[in-house]
Order: sequence, then C-alpha cells, then structure tokens
Amino acid sequence: MIRDLKALNRLVDSFRKLPSVGLKSAERMAYAVLEMKPEDVEEFAQALTNVKVKIHKCPVCGIYTEDEVCEICSDPERSHDTLIVVSFQKDVYAFEKIERFKGVYHVLNGVLSAVNGVGIEDLSIDSLIKRITEEDIKEVILATNPTIEGETTALFIAKMLSKYTVKITRLAYGMPMGGHLDYTDSMTLNKALEGRTKIKNEE
Amino acid sequence: MIRDLKALNRLVDSFRKLPSVGLKSAERMAYAVLEMKPEDVEEFAQALTNVKVKIHKCPVCGIYTEDEVCEICSDPERSHDTLIVVSFQKDVYAFEKIERFKGVYHVLNGVLSAVNGVGIEDLSIDSLIKRITEEDIKEVILATNPTIEGETTALFIAKMLSKYTVKITRLAYGMPMGGHLDYTDSMTLNKALEGRTKIKNEE
Repeated sequence: MIRDLKALNRLVDSFRKLPSVGLKSAERMAYAVLEMKPEDVEEFAQALTNVKVKIHKCPVCGIYTEDEVCEICSDPERSHDTLIVVSFQKDVYAFEKIERFKGVYHVLNGVLSAVNGVGIEDLSIDSLIKRITEEDIKEVILATNPTIEGETTALFIAKMLSKYTVKITRLAYGMPMGGHLDYTDSMTLNKALEGRTKIKNEE
Repeated sequence: MIRDLKALNRLVDSFRKLPSVGLKSAERMAYAVLEMKPEDVEEFAQALTNVKVKIHKCPVCGIYTEDEVCEICSDPERSHDTLIVVSFQKDVYAFEKIERFKGVYHVLNGVLSAVNGVGIEDLSIDSLIKRITEEDIKEVILATNPTIEGETTALFIAKMLSKYTVKITRLAYGMPMGGHLDYTDSMTLNKALEGRTKIKNEE
C-alpha cells in the first residue's frame, strides 16, 4: 500500500544511498518526511542542494571548505613545509583531533584499487607532485591506511616522489596502545617485532 | 573542522529530524551527501519536495495517496458499511497486512493527549461524524492502541457516536498469541480473565 506511492519510493531510493540505511530504515525515514511540516521538508531539500553549492574542495589540498582556500592551507601559523598525505577527508579530521600535527595535508581521494577500478588518474597525485615542485616542502608523511590497498598506494607514491629532494616517511606500524598480545593479528605482531626500538636505560 | 562548515551543519540539522538519527549518524549522512554525485543530490532534493507535492491525505479517510481519493475508499469491492478507526496511518498497513478486513478505514491522526497537547480539534473526528451521518455505515470498529491515551480516545469517540444508530465495537483484549502467562503484565491478564469465552464441547 504505502509501497505503491511512487513519490515515496523515489525518496526511499535516495535515502538508501546513505551509509548504513537499509530498506526498512529508508521507508521509516520517507514516512517521517510525509509527516513533517512542509517548511521543514523545504528546508531539508534546500540544505541538500546548498551543501553542493557552498562546499567545495580546497584547490590546494582537497579538504572540504566554504572559503576559497581551506583554513589549514591559509593558516600562516602552520608549517607549510611538512605535508601529511591521506586517502580520505575523514583521515584529516582524525589527525586534527589529536592536536599534535601543525603542518598541512594532501587528500588523495581514495586508494589504488584494481577491484574497485580506481587508478592513478582517479587520485590527486598530479596536484601532489605540483605542490612538491612548486612549494618548499621538506617532508611528505604518507598516512594511507595500513591495508593492502593503502600500502600499495603509499609505495606507489613513494616511488613517484623518489626523484625529488624531499624526505618521504610513513606512519609507524606496531601494537596499538591498550592492545593485547593474544588478540593481535600476526601481521601486526610481525611489524611490531621488526620495528622494535631500544630502551634507553637512564644512567 | 568539518563542524565549521555552515552548509553541512544545516543539513545535519535536517537529518536529525528523522526518526532514530542522532548527531553521529546525521554527520555521517551529511558527509556522504558531500561525497555523492551532484545529480544524485539533486535527485534527492527533488524527491523530498516531490513527496509533499504528489502525496496528500485521502479527503474521505485520511490515508496517504497520490490519487484524488485513496485506493481503499475508491474500491467498489470493499464493504463501505464497516469502518475501522485507527490513530495512525501505519495502523492501516498493519490491518492490510493480515488481509482479513475488507471494509474501509478512518485515520484520526493521533490520540487525545493532555501531555502532548493534543485535543479533540486536532483529530479527524468531525469528518468521522460526517461520514456516519452521510454514508450508510453499520459498524465502527475502534482500533486505537490499548494504551491509556488510546483508550481515552476510543471511549471519547464511542460517547460521541452513541447518539447515532451505528454499532460501535472495540478490538478484543487478551493474551497475545505465543505469549507466556508468567511474562504477561497484570493488566493484560486481568483483561484476558474478564473477557474469557466458553469452550464449546463437540457433542
């Protein structure tokens, strides 16, 4: 019955495109829209369109912004010679949350993936190379996820950047803080063993 | 950072108006919209507006429809002399799902509630009385929820309809099928005892 309403089904389809929204949830949401005040629905529709009109990617680093250049790239107090390369926008927020890093970022917009058909041309690699040649960048920290695809992407970029006089580093691998040895996968344990550091005894 | 984007916050506010969507989910959804193709966002916005333009309440019974009169009211094969009164649209779907009832409906659009400030004038009671005086209705089945507010609403309507020559009935109370005695609340058990029926022995 309610599934016979074409206009409602169309909205259900749109809701289903959102993360972790299945058919049941999408139907409940569409039904809620039916019950909303007309002005609230109008506001919802305008807010949606507005997001795409007002927000764009920073032409320098790729972070979402409402300004011409994002607040990180335009901040004179940050070190513009150290650059963290991440796959996704949300990784930038992860770093910003720890309030430790005071350099700038570069968002690749994905990882190399044969399965998902993501190639070099789909990532912002050209603009990264442009920054390295034009700006005075001393260190590039590759911070793609420690997954097979993330690793492949990091290695590929490291290779492409090897001809420039820039220091290329990668985030450390190892045991996560608060982790338990018996719950740690063998790959992580291997990396933790490989990367072991000497404990300095105070004398 | 991402929380500084005004256009995104506006969309987060709209998503939060949906059922069981908290701040975290709303932010994830708004972020997903940012990553969507522009045409998908446009379609989403149009689908939203469209729902309010295309779908309206049936002027007879109050069920959502895209036609002038809803498919139940305009179905000549249904018994238009038996009417189930429900509080909400979704209650109609509950009855339609069991495929047993072949009469028509009347949606009140709520329950009387002092706490939520819902009075008689907020419910479709006038149109119910109008139907009873103008149409040839023989039985009105009151099917509001068996809650305090639902009961109050049912009793109120029963009183208002008492002057008309129409049979007024209420759904039966009792043990839910598959229920367990020791898990049944005392109110339900009381109702089940009160409404006990005689078992007919075959002779």
